[in-house]
Parts: sequence; C-alpha cells; structure tokens
Amino acid sequence: MNTASHIVALLLASIATATYAAPPAPDTRDQAIALIASSYEYNIGYQIIESLTTEVGARQAGSEAEARARRWGAAKFRQLGFSNVRIEPFEVEFWERASERAEIVAPYPQNLAITSLGGSVGTSDDGVRGDVVRFATLQALKDAPRTGLEGKIVFVDEPMTRTQDGSGYGVAVAKRSGAANEAGKRGALAALIRSVGTDHHRFPHTGQMYYQPEVAKVPTAALSAPDADQLQRALSRGPVELSLRLNVQSLGMRPSGNVLAEIPGTSDEIVLIGAHLDSWDLGTGAVDDGAGIGITVAAAKLILDLKTPPKRTIRVVMFGSEEVGLVGAKAYAKKYQDSLDQHIVGTESDFGAGKIWRFDTRVADSALDDMRAIHKVLQPLGIAMGGNQATGGPDMGPLRELGMPVVTLKQNGWDYFDLHHTADDTLDKINPANITQNVAAYAAFVWLVANMDGDLRAAAPHADGKATE
Amino acid sequence: MNTASHIVALLLASIATATYAAPPAPDTRDQAIALIASSYEYNIGYQIIESLTTEVGARQAGSEAEARARRWGAAKFRQLGFSNVRIEPFEVEFWERASERAEIVAPYPQNLAITSLGGSVGTSDDGVRGDVVRFATLQALKDAPRTGLEGKIVFVDEPMTRTQDGSGYGVAVAKRSGAANEAGKRGALAALIRSVGTDHHRFPHTGQMYYQPEVAKVPTAALSAPDADQLQRALSRGPVELSLRLNVQSLGMRPSGNVLAEIPGTSDEIVLIGAHLDSWDLGTGAVDDGAGIGITVAAAKLILDLKTPPKRTIRVVMFGSEEVGLVGAKAYAKKYQDSLDQHIVGTESDFGAGKIWRFDTRVADSALDDMRAIHKVLQPLGIAMGGNQATGGPDMGPLRELGMPVVTLKQNGWDYFDLHHTADDTLDKINPANITQNVAAYAAFVWLVANMDGDLRAAAPHADGKATE
Repeated sequence: MNTASHIVALLLASIATATYAAPPAPDTRDQAIALIASSYEYNIGYQIIESLTTEVGARQAGSEAEARARRWGAAKFRQLGFSNVRIEPFEVEFWERASERAEIVAPYPQNLAITSLGGSVGTSDDGVRGDVVRFATLQALKDAPRTGLEGKIVFVDEPMTRTQDGSGYGVAVAKRSGAANEAGKRGALAALIRSVGTDHHRFPHTGQMYYQPEVAKVPTAALSAPDADQLQRALSRGPVELSLRLNVQSLGMRPSGNVLAEIPGTSDEIVLIGAHLDSWDLGTGAVDDGAGIGITVAAAKLILDLKTPPKRTIRVVMFGSEEVGLVGAKAYAKKYQDSLDQHIVGTESDFGAGKIWRFDTRVADSALDDMRAIHKVLQPLGIAMGGNQATGGPDMGPLRELGMPVVTLKQNGWDYFDLHHTADDTLDKINPANITQNVAAYAAFVWLVANMDGDLRAAAPHADGKATE
Repeated sequence: MNTASHIVALLLASIATATYAAPPAPDTRDQAIALIASSYEYNIGYQIIESLTTEVGARQAGSEAEARARRWGAAKFRQLGFSNVRIEPFEVEFWERASERAEIVAPYPQNLAITSLGGSVGTSDDGVRGDVVRFATLQALKDAPRTGLEGKIVFVDEPMTRTQDGSGYGVAVAKRSGAANEAGKRGALAALIRSVGTDHHRFPHTGQMYYQPEVAKVPTAALSAPDADQLQRALSRGPVELSLRLNVQSLGMRPSGNVLAEIPGTSDEIVLIGAHLDSWDLGTGAVDDGAGIGITVAAAKLILDLKTPPKRTIRVVMFGSEEVGLVGAKAYAKKYQDSLDQHIVGTESDFGAGKIWRFDTRVADSALDDMRAIHKVLQPLGIAMGGNQATGGPDMGPLRELGMPVVTLKQNGWDYFDLHHTADDTLDKINPANITQNVAAYAAFVWLVANMDGDLRAAAPHADGKATE
C-alpha cells in the first residue's frame, strides 16, 4: 500500500467512526479526502518553491528582485490556470546592504561574522571604534544607568530558546530593536546583538529593526552565535576594542506589490490564503517564505483541478514586503476594507517547511463545531486540534485586527530559527515530504471551509487578545 | 564509578588477561594507565584549543596572525613547563584574500556564495564575465576537447563522498588544482568548483591550489554546496552568464616558523609529535588544527607532570604553514636531516576533533609486536589495531619519505569535511569529551614508545608505498 492509499484508508476509517456536531456534506468531505490523496500523487508544492528560489532567488522588499518575483508569481498563477490574476502595487521604503565588517581591534585582532539589521543606519566610511560593553539580556541593558555607555559599543548577548511552537522568538526578537534604542538613549556608538536564532553556525541572522522616533539612531548589527561566543570569551579576559563598518542605507520609496489570484466561487464570500513573496537579501528565501508560497499555491491548484467551483471564492495572495513591517498585508487590508465582511476566514503559511502538527482557530464560538468537523478530516495527517486564539500568520494580522476570523495550520518550528533570515535559507533545507503534508492539509481545510454554510464571525467582533498559538 | 575509574578498570582487566610478545615494562605500563586516567581528570587539551582560537583566531600561513600564534605557542609551552622552547623561522609565500564576489548576471540575477582557492590569481577590478560550462566531474573536463571553452567560465560540479576515514577527500580534492589547470589549458576565463566538503550549508571551502608551470593561470574559486546546486539548477534551464570578481593576490615571502618544545629524555633519541599551528583565514581553525595542537600539547603536558624523564626525548612541534604545502614540515626535515636517525617515530594530529578509532603504524616488521603491545593499552579507549601503512599525518610526510617510522592515531573523520577550511570551523564545533579521549591515547602511546627499547626502523628504509590508512 502506498503512502497515499494508506492515508486515505486512515481517513475513511477515522470518518466512519466519528460523531459530528456538524459534519461536512458527504460529497464535500469525499472531495477533501480526494484532495489529500492527490497531494501525495505529485509534488507541485516543492516544484513551485524550486522555481521561485532558483529563478528569482533572494527578493528583498522594494528591490528589483522583488519586482521580478511579482512577475514570476503572476506568470505562475496564469500558467496554473487561476482566474483574476493581478498585481496590486504599493510603495515601500527600500533599505540596501552594500557591505559590512566587524573586527576585534585589540587585544585579539580578528574578524567577526556580522550582518546589519534591516533599517539600521550605516556608519561613516571609517566605521566606528570603541570598547565593547556586554549585557547578558536586553533587560540588563534597560536596567543600566543612563550614563556610562557614551562612546561604547553595546553588545546584547541574550540567547533564544528553541521550541516547537516558536514561542522563544517573541522574547528574543525584542533585542533586535531594543538594543539600538537603549544604546541610543545612552550615547553609545553602536549596538550589537547575538543573532535572533537557534543554530550554532557562523551565519548572522538579519531582520527588521525600528528606531524609536525620539532616540538617536545608532548603527546596529547581529553577530552569529559562534561570534557572540567568541566576543564573550574575549571579554571574559578583559577589555575588548572593536571596529564596525556598516555600509547600508535607506534609499526612499520603491515599488512593491501583492500578487493575487482566485478560484471564483458561486457566492461573493472569500476564503483568503497566502504567504509572503519577499525574503531577506541573504538567502534565497526557501523556508521564509518560499515554502508558504509553494504550499498555498499548490493547495489551491489541487482544488482548481477538481474543476468544481467552490461555494466561496478562494483567493490566494502572495504578499509583498512582509519582512519590513507587513506592508503588503496593510495595503491589502486598506484596499479591501469595504469588503472585509466578505472575508469569511484567512490563513497564511509563514513558519517554514516543517510538518503541520496542530490546527488552531480564531472563530466565533458558534463555529467551533464546524471547525472540529474539519479537524476530523485533518487528523489522519498527524494534526491535533488546538485552541481558539490563532494569529492566522503575520500577514493576516491587519485583517484579524479588523475582525476577520483566522486559522493557523501550525507547523513544527523546532528547526525554523536555525535558518531564519540567514544566507543558509536555501532550497536544500526543505524536505519535500513535509511540503506534501502541508499541501494536503491546506487543500482539505480550504475546500471544506469554502463549501460550508456557517458563519465563522462572531456577532460582536472577536476580541484580539493575546495570541497563544 | 566515574568515567576515569571505569576506563582504568577496563584497562587493568584487559592487560591482566592479555598475552604479550613484548609487553611494556610493568612500571611504564602502569604509568601509561595513570596518564589515561589523568587525562579524564581535567580538560587541558580543550583549554589549549579555547586559548588559541580565542586569543589568536584565524592564523593564515605567513600572516601577522600566524606570527602572533607562534608567540602564543612559545608562551604556552613555557607556561606549561616545557624545556628547550624555541621558534625556528623560515619564509613562506603570503597570499591574501581581500574580497570576492560571484553573481549570476543572466537570466536569474543573484549572488552566489564563493571563496577563492588559496594561491589563485585575482581577476581585474572589473572581474570576468562569461557563460558557464558545467562538468559533472574533473575527469569529464579532462576528457573535453582542447577547444570550445575559450571565454567561458568552467564549473566542475564533482561532489565528495562522506567517509569515516576521509578517503573521499583525495578523490575530491583533485579538482581544487585540476579545474583551474584544465580550464587554463583551454583558454577559459576562470574556474569554479563545488567545494571540497561534505556539508550542505552555505559555506564555501577554501584550500590551496597549485598552477602547473606551463599553463595560463586562471582565477579559481569554490562554490558552497547549496550554490553549486543552484548553479546546476539554473544551467538545467538554459545558458547562464556569470560574473566573478576575486580581489586576491600573492604578496611575496613573509616570515613563518615552527614552534618547538621538549621533555628531555635520558638518551639522544627523539619521539616526535605535533600538529599545525596555521589555519585558513576564514574560520578560527578549531578543528583544523587547533584540535591537534590541544591534543598533542596536552598529552605531552600530562607526561611532563609525571616528573619522570622518559628514556627518549619527547619533542612537540607546532608546525607553521602546513596549509600551503607543508612548508614548516619541509623546513623541519631540512634542519634536522643530520639527526634523522635519532627520530625513532613521529605522529601528527591533524584530522579534526573526532574520537580515535584505530591505531595505524608504519614501522619495521620486527617492531610490530611492540606496537601490538602498545595497542593493548589503547584498546579500552575504543581503538582498534590497524595496518602498517600509516601516513603519520601531513606534516610527517617529508620525514616519513626520508625513512622515519610513523604511526597514526586515526580519528573518526565522518564530520570533518563538513567544517574543513570554512568560516564555520570554530570552537563550538568541538566536543570536549572527544579531546579527552585523544589526549589519553596520545599520552599513553608517547609514554610507552618513549620508554621502550626496540628499534622501529627497518634495516632497509621502509618503502613509502601507497598509504592505505
């Protein structure tokens, strides 16, 4: 028995014995199972990731490469047979990395592997040079006196905790902006952080940082974990003088955009799925977020190939400029604010290329039985039922805050932050079998929710409390 | 029972039941067992590696950093209490990497991660630009016609096989010089190779290459494995134009040197152990060859702390400029050519930081019983008896070729070529427990061989046939 047959057998066994509060219509459910089976028949999701990462490569927000990615996306949608393919333009501040270099000047001259954080100001051509002051955590820097760091280079060495659900990220990422702002308040020359990441390779992790408006802007960069260790060891022996040269700059507003396609439904309601098209400049954006593009486009393609119009329109969005502050998602929310009520539910795939292990929702309590019925179809894929505080993924944030129901097909993120925002985020890191499982789950979920009757939206807008997924 | 006691118990049990052709004198054997036990008491080997990689970092042959490493080495020897500490200078051609860059120009513009191979000529400031022609193996390039590659960039995509004994290296490394020389013979603009390495991270592997005298010198660089994959994928779609800019150059002769220290014996015979002090410029040279420095110096230090002079002098050498053609080893062999007969046996640790799993020798047949007796003491450390075709390690080559007996305490090299000659060769990759096992084996071997009576040298010089370890 092959994998596909095995999973279909499990599905049928599971469904035969389950009791539903609100089971999907039998035809719809059979079609969902057929979608799962067909996802195991061919690997279109992986092929899409391969195409994007090879033919475009890195595609930073606002860059010429991101424009090529939009053309790639529109062409791919058309080639696959989607309807209403379009690019919806907006503008984004473009920040460019030209070169960057850090070295211990004394007492142990040597280079350190660093990368500027997105949005950082550069140094002068000569760079900055000063003694390093280390803080074990961002909180320790926040607790430091307002004087004593003038002319110093601040180093926040806080590590990140590895978790399956990515919950270590929110804690660790605070230093990405926090180090520079706290350093700026204290007259420091520059700020360095231990990379926001969980690997131990010599890849620094980039990522966007934001200056507080009233604070002096100091250049800021991330050290790879081995280099943070090295700097810590040097500091444990005595004072360390470091020089830092960041040739980076913001170049003003540039074109960006979202790429949209649809499978038209028989009603005017919309099921929104997507991922983000832009990547950081260092890698080829395979796990972040080529994977999400491949998963969501492939899932919709499987549905398209059913050649049965869904009740609700399935809209697939490749969001632009996610990495620099959800700029594409905000543009989408603004553009579609008048049709927000038509958006029945949304979900984004943006957590790498691990298998999905949990189905989280954020819907009206009255819709939870429907969600549990959908979960019964997903369960044989190894997916547990989660809670009702899903975020839906970063690009769903602006719409979620406006009351759109969301779900998250939550991936195993154990290894995600090993690669996140590094040069090492390349195609070879993706296991095609994981992509297949993701495509199966997205296809089944989207098909079921696009054909169900119930309203997922609460009578009153669902409170946007703390997301606990 | 702790690890040390457990191993000593195993040792005693093993020795009690063994039958020897030529057992070491009981006192000497007990002292060897004590050395093994003491290696598990404290981790001086790891501390030495930590000190070198932190306080010096990368230390390329002929660089100012290598000079600092020599001062570090002499100071470390003196601090540990060795005798006859000295630096023996020689000169080496110094080659410097300033910057390097490769990008696909068309049809899919993107940067590729590369690094120049040591000794390569640079390109002009504008770089070179041409279509890429891929060869799956070096042999395929060698088999190519002498015309047809003019103005092209040759790409030799041959992968390396992962093995425990490193035997994949000799095959794969041929392309490091071969690609450039075969490209040069055919009028190509430049040569690229898939890195000589076994990892799948975005670290290109450097390493020395040598131009054939009569061949046009073309610039040559290595792609990381993910970038070699990427270039292959792009080529599978059609022609690929690439630009390459290598700002590298040879800067003439510079000072280098070997650092020596001794534990004086009661005879004029010498047991030679060592490792190489220089590293490539990209990483901090932790596994290549900080590990060897730590292992051999720590083993000798344990013997020093016995406070019992060995019969034969134990000489520890930190060889300079190994990476660029065994320059320090050749200088040593030249300097000591008149006392070669006093060199009873030699061994170098230069295969990373894995555990030792086999004891290989290259001695007179008449000395094999003595070697088997020594092996009985090493066996409880998980070390098997190997054959009699050892190389002794790279820096033993020039002396071995002159007839010096050698042994190899062969390490597990399964992971060695993941890190070899990359920026990722840093301290965090070393497991201190492996270093302890290495130190134990070296200390026991050196102590036993320094106190035995027999001659390891054959009556006629041992033929330097194919090394099969």
